[in-house]
Amino acid sequence: MSSSGPKESLAGNLYQEMLRWPIFDPHSHIDPHRPAARHFDEILGYHYYTELAHSAGMPASQVLPTVARPQRVRNIVEHLNRLDNTVQYEWLSEITQTFLGHQGPLDLNAVDSLLTQADHSQNSAAWDEHVWTTSKLEAVFLTNEFDDPLEGWDRSRYIPCLRTDDLVLKLHEPKTVERLKQASNIDVGDEKSLRLAVASIFAHFVKCGARACAISVPTDFVPRPATPKRAATPLRRALHGLDLRPDEHEEIRSFVFWMLAEFCAEFQLPFDLMIGPIRNSYPAGVAGGRDLFDRRVSLADYHSLFNHFSGVTFPISTLSPDAAPELVAHCWIFPNVVPNGHWWYSNIPTYIEQDLRARIQAVPKTKQIGYYSDAYKLEFILPKFNMYRRILADVLAQEVMRKPGWTEDSALDLARHLLVENPKRLFPAVRST
Amino acid sequence: MSSSGPKESLAGNLYQEMLRWPIFDPHSHIDPHRPAARHFDEILGYHYYTELAHSAGMPASQVLPTVARPQRVRNIVEHLNRLDNTVQYEWLSEITQTFLGHQGPLDLNAVDSLLTQADHSQNSAAWDEHVWTTSKLEAVFLTNEFDDPLEGWDRSRYIPCLRTDDLVLKLHEPKTVERLKQASNIDVGDEKSLRLAVASIFAHFVKCGARACAISVPTDFVPRPATPKRAATPLRRALHGLDLRPDEHEEIRSFVFWMLAEFCAEFQLPFDLMIGPIRNSYPAGVAGGRDLFDRRVSLADYHSLFNHFSGVTFPISTLSPDAAPELVAHCWIFPNVVPNGHWWYSNIPTYIEQDLRARIQAVPKTKQIGYYSDAYKLEFILPKFNMYRRILADVLAQEVMRKPGWTEDSALDLARHLLVENPKRLFPAVRST
Amino acid sequence: MSSSGPKESLAGNLYQEMLRWPIFDPHSHIDPHRPAARHFDEILGYHYYTELAHSAGMPASQVLPTVARPQRVRNIVEHLNRLDNTVQYEWLSEITQTFLGHQGPLDLNAVDSLLTQADHSQNSAAWDEHVWTTSKLEAVFLTNEFDDPLEGWDRSRYIPCLRTDDLVLKLHEPKTVERLKQASNIDVGDEKSLRLAVASIFAHFVKCGARACAISVPTDFVPRPATPKRAATPLRRALHGLDLRPDEHEEIRSFVFWMLAEFCAEFQLPFDLMIGPIRNSYPAGVAGGRDLFDRRVSLADYHSLFNHFSGVTFPISTLSPDAAPELVAHCWIFPNVVPNGHWWYSNIPTYIEQDLRARIQAVPKTKQIGYYSDAYKLEFILPKFNMYRRILADVLAQEVMRKPGWTEDSALDLARHLLVENPKRLFPAVRST
Repeated sequence: MSSSGPKESLAGNLYQEMLRWPIFDPHSHIDPHRPAARHFDEILGYHYYTELAHSAGMPASQVLPTVARPQRVRNIVEHLNRLDNTVQYEWLSEITQTFLGHQGPLDLNAVDSLLTQADHSQNSAAWDEHVWTTSKLEAVFLTNEFDDPLEGWDRSRYIPCLRTDDLVLKLHEPKTVERLKQASNIDVGDEKSLRLAVASIFAHFVKCGARACAISVPTDFVPRPATPKRAATPLRRALHGLDLRPDEHEEIRSFVFWMLAEFCAEFQLPFDLMIGPIRNSYPAGVAGGRDLFDRRVSLADYHSLFNHFSGVTFPISTLSPDAAPELVAHCWIFPNVVPNGHWWYSNIPTYIEQDLRARIQAVPKTKQIGYYSDAYKLEFILPKFNMYRRILADVLAQEVMRKPGWTEDSALDLARHLLVENPKRLFPAVRST
Repeated sequence: MSSSGPKESLAGNLYQEMLRWPIFDPHSHIDPHRPAARHFDEILGYHYYTELAHSAGMPASQVLPTVARPQRVRNIVEHLNRLDNTVQYEWLSEITQTFLGHQGPLDLNAVDSLLTQADHSQNSAAWDEHVWTTSKLEAVFLTNEFDDPLEGWDRSRYIPCLRTDDLVLKLHEPKTVERLKQASNIDVGDEKSLRLAVASIFAHFVKCGARACAISVPTDFVPRPATPKRAATPLRRALHGLDLRPDEHEEIRSFVFWMLAEFCAEFQLPFDLMIGPIRNSYPAGVAGGRDLFDRRVSLADYHSLFNHFSGVTFPISTLSPDAAPELVAHCWIFPNVVPNGHWWYSNIPTYIEQDLRARIQAVPKTKQIGYYSDAYKLEFILPKFNMYRRILADVLAQEVMRKPGWTEDSALDLARHLLVENPKRLFPAVRST
Repeated sequence: MSSSGPKESLAGNLYQEMLRWPIFDPHSHIDPHRPAARHFDEILGYHYYTELAHSAGMPASQVLPTVARPQRVRNIVEHLNRLDNTVQYEWLSEITQTFLGHQGPLDLNAVDSLLTQADHSQNSAAWDEHVWTTSKLEAVFLTNEFDDPLEGWDRSRYIPCLRTDDLVLKLHEPKTVERLKQASNIDVGDEKSLRLAVASIFAHFVKCGARACAISVPTDFVPRPATPKRAATPLRRALHGLDLRPDEHEEIRSFVFWMLAEFCAEFQLPFDLMIGPIRNSYPAGVAGGRDLFDRRVSLADYHSLFNHFSGVTFPISTLSPDAAPELVAHCWIFPNVVPNGHWWYSNIPTYIEQDLRARIQAVPKTKQIGYYSDAYKLEFILPKFNMYRRILADVLAQEVMRKPGWTEDSALDLARHLLVENPKRLFPAVRST
């Protein structure tokens, strides 16, 4: 920030102050057994780089898992100069500077050095610790499948979260039922045994310190109260691997989704809704880069859910950037609906900035969960949070200039709510019962 | 505005100039019999504070009408520090400073003093006058039910407007029919007598100086030309309190809405459409804080209305902030469609700013109705208009910097159109016939 | 730009540099036989001025073709002071200054002088050349009907593009079939002969240097693979002028659209989609000022098209400003989908600015087609591109301030991609086969 007006220097001060704070990251895809990258390919293999390189002309075949890792890296690096304008490139640039000590362009000449610098196959535990400490991480939420044993890592650092997409969307697949039986030790075959099995999974997660139940909800799904009566037969058919009609699929999705909300109420877990993706919109794309969305979604379809489960906190992420104002209004009215970070296609500075400004102007400050990283490797948490902190600092500086009576302290107080206090309070550490 | 670049000082000048102008407020919910607040509870009881406090954790029961007023005030004040980031808090802050002489935080310590300062039970007329004068009010439009006798106040200050939601949406309720009979003195029982009754109401309103007919249109309604033939039976059934099928309800809504547009044409009243709310989305909310919207609305559904009634001015407010660009385009094409203020969930500085910039760049300046307060108590008109004037000053300063040939005078000319000239001309004082 | 912070002077530098570049304009409605205006009425008769003047109160009858040209001009000029706030007025102002040497207000006093200055009936070729050179034009894409002989002009300057709306949307009109027969010299009567005829048209266009196939797609159309089998009968009926059921119309639209995409693949032409208009929304409007849109469109409806024709480049323009973020996401994922300029109701500085910022932050720089003029007369290309260049300079200056490691050179490199390199590469000069 080379400019030096009062706004810019205020923004600079706010940013510097935020850099001193710990990071509490309420949503990620970190693998707690391998949190930081052991190989540069685990940095550059992040779907943002493979999909943007592919979008810019790189054949998808160049990043298949069968391609040797150094070659995959070279294939992507070769295309980076086509996307060096993007914010994703900025993250990469910050990572290579902060964690790999790399200066200069990210081109083929740099690959050997990057591969060497990023090789942590021999010192992985120390490297995990280094990234953790350098990033001032305090806690990172995971995304755990329902049958994850949740063992083998420090659960005060890497906090379990129950991801439930498979239960709602793939209950008709024999593999899901098999996993459910194994995880719950219950012979799931009907609505009653399904409920027992899912209850045991919730109990296990809560006992292991889980702080959220999460799901990504496709655009063609509208939550509604399903009745055990109507769902009984389709459920039995699904759980026994029989064919289902479309309306039976729909009945099962509705029933299981509603049941999950009931368990969230019972176990006092927030139900983290990530609304809007269409999976596999572009099947020929690279892994992780095939999903898009339909912008014609509306939270109006969720009113009955929010009303029925008034005791459940719903942290909401929406995918379509133009749907952001609707979320602001819903969080302003429903006590149990809170805005959760800036997700995926909405995680772009200009969209964040517009949305953040609205949230700050219209949603009580105690309700806003500022940001999460959505990262797969620890190294990405810092640059993503720094991007957000820069935007937040800038928006807050503008608010201080604009608002009579607002000071730098008011701005920092707000920032602390968004980044530290709210995520801790709104995803509370549940006491196991 | 502590910054001091050329843009900031220009914005400051523009704002100072606008502060000198009278306020002509073309939409409010002011009660002309009790225009200003007699009790601090009438300030703090505004649904924005009760709903935001409730959203931030205050039980709805704490602001029930049965709670004693000082206690209601205390209950809300106790939660204000959770929402002191919002623009609504800014309005409150400006009110307590400007009208109640209060400095310092709005916390429990301040409540006694605020209650005392705001007690105007003994000097209500003088207080109404004080707020009117301090705010430089010139005229304030009301929201009058169709059976309002429109008597007992100065109609050159408080201008009647015919609100028609009940006629369109609740004609099947016996109470509505009863009110209609009483107001019109016509024994309403079929389409013909309904038309006579509504005509007499229009005549009464116009005689009393009404300058608009208004309605808020729900998201599931699409205006269409209904025929007396198809509507005859459903209307008769409705007017006699008989049960209706959904398609009959729909027929009645369509018929009455279209008939109102016909009377607007006949009586030369603008038809003020406020498009988008879903009533009672959150039934457990506080009074006035239960409505939301569905963002999937489109003015494309209104083309036949705008085409058919080319002689009627349609001032349009839309509720979903992301629908704003569509309104800009429609006002740019249809001579009889004009953008009307920034409504409710769109009445947030960042949304206003984006929308205002587009309107200024794409809609003829003679067509834009800049702002209305939507206020329930006089005290809110000034801070709301000041918020708008600050944004307008800022946006205009940017335009002056950006546009070759634009000067401070061009900017003020535009501002005067938006704030003063257009609302007066587009809501003309109708001569009674 | 009178302000002088570091951002402003950087923006100024960037803009000055861009002014030196040639203009490569990948979409216009220029008539290559009369590219520049011969009469001021051809400037002021642009639908933006007639429709805005009409929207601001001018009767549509005042600009009918039957009105004498000087009078038409006067009728419009008389209303210009109602819309001197708009960006369209800015273009006009820049044209009259740059090309007509006019200073001062555009009012009735100026009309005689403007009419004289703009009269090029006697020196049309020299004037075309003057505007071309002054604007630093390099190439301008046309919009050619499928039966355009494409002869009589310099096709290296005015590049043919095959516009296909009539084939898809009006194939049932006898006039279309007649034109198709004449243009292709094939007796079109069924699916097979239709395919031959369209093939011959593609061949002709490509031989004449066409660089795109274009269509504007209405909101009620969803591309889908149609089968020759289902389409055969409806096609035959349409081609013989017989009546069609709505589903048959739909089948024909689908079939022809898909066939065009197949020919784009075969002939390696980009398929330029302009998505969203509703034609004749306001039938009583002025010519060219009757169309609007429905904002409820989604590119989700185009996934199967983009997937099926992975070898075809789809430059996309969307009409509803709030649909812009969706296009960003689709261009980020699909290699063959690229954002194309800022179209019509989205071609407003504030919408461009928001959208441009997102594209710069999220779409590979090699994929973005910055801008096209959509102009009907050469004179409009320069002011429209200058408007865009000013916004681009401003947005880039902000990015340079914001992004660590970004310099003025990075910004210019990006600008050159958007304005020069990408449109040339993404609309390649096809070698005739």
